[in-house]
Amino acid sequence: MVEQTLLEQLVEALRVMPGIGRKSAQRIAHQLLQRNRDAAKHLSRILAEAMDRIGHCKRCRTYTENELCYLCENTRRDDSTICVVENPSDVDAIEEANYKGRYFVLLGHLSPLDGIGPDDIGLHDFQKLIENEDLKEVILATSTTVEGEATAHFISEMCKARGKQVTRIAHGVPMGGELEYANSLTIAHALDGRREI
Amino acid sequence: MVEQTLLEQLVEALRVMPGIGRKSAQRIAHQLLQRNRDAAKHLSRILAEAMDRIGHCKRCRTYTENELCYLCENTRRDDSTICVVENPSDVDAIEEANYKGRYFVLLGHLSPLDGIGPDDIGLHDFQKLIENEDLKEVILATSTTVEGEATAHFISEMCKARGKQVTRIAHGVPMGGELEYANSLTIAHALDGRREI
Repeated sequence: MVEQTLLEQLVEALRVMPGIGRKSAQRIAHQLLQRNRDAAKHLSRILAEAMDRIGHCKRCRTYTENELCYLCENTRRDDSTICVVENPSDVDAIEEANYKGRYFVLLGHLSPLDGIGPDDIGLHDFQKLIENEDLKEVILATSTTVEGEATAHFISEMCKARGKQVTRIAHGVPMGGELEYANSLTIAHALDGRREI
Repeated sequence: MVEQTLLEQLVEALRVMPGIGRKSAQRIAHQLLQRNRDAAKHLSRILAEAMDRIGHCKRCRTYTENELCYLCENTRRDDSTICVVENPSDVDAIEEANYKGRYFVLLGHLSPLDGIGPDDIGLHDFQKLIENEDLKEVILATSTTVEGEATAHFISEMCKARGKQVTRIAHGVPMGGELEYANSLTIAHALDGRREI
């Protein structure tokens, strides 16, 4: 076994990123070396700093380098609504839809088979939050997988037991989507959730 | 304008990589934070080291952190053949095809409109190399674009003027490729280059 060249080590290290295979990693390494060394060095610095300094928001559990994330720090958000999501990236998606309330990020979903119980997804903190804050509505935006649905069900029971209104985001045919490409479960949900116009 | 969070800075910095858009960068940032902080820190270190230390091989111009690349340092390669390619990544591709000779990497191609002349693609060094070394064959493996073909033509004239045998790699229907999906120029090349069997 010959010793790896620095370039080979770089290609291998780049593959830690999801979706980056060997060919993409080679292409990235070559392009950075050829055209963008300064930007690559900047990426190296930010990457190290981010991995060292980014933790979780004390209130909503999303990523932040501070005690509270910029959304929880923002005093102009609507404190009466809280939206429960599985991942920090879901927060970005919902922000783009112009939601103005608060968030709670589970960082996962219930999965008894993998040993992931309520405490592992922060539901202990969430319980304190719904008991101590003046919430009007809890919006469940966990994913539509079996685990996501089970997690939503579990949280809705928690909320109802404490007299909080709880809603689930609508499932149906996506906007701009064609009916013939939607699966039957989606269409069943769309029919179920029909509204008078 | 609110100050960018460290996570936003990371997402933006990741986009320096070719083929990584905003969504992919977000996904990569979240995954590294959630599952792979140590590997990401390792990537950060290797990236900085590679950008600082990787230069070009004195002989063939490919990337290396040493004076000579591992291929040029290898004394068991065939010194009588040299394969001319445009990019360091082409070297990897040809290595996989079990070629045993030497390389010369142009790091580009002739492009008079962009002000890229013979000296910019190392042809001054290449001239010295073909004049001083005991080469039997120069294989031109530049790409099949207009610029790649023009570059191949220019180099072949250089070689012929110095009495060196020069060949161009074959162009034709790719192995495993179906005829109906090959373009007409490829098929024309394949017919042109037909051999008796």
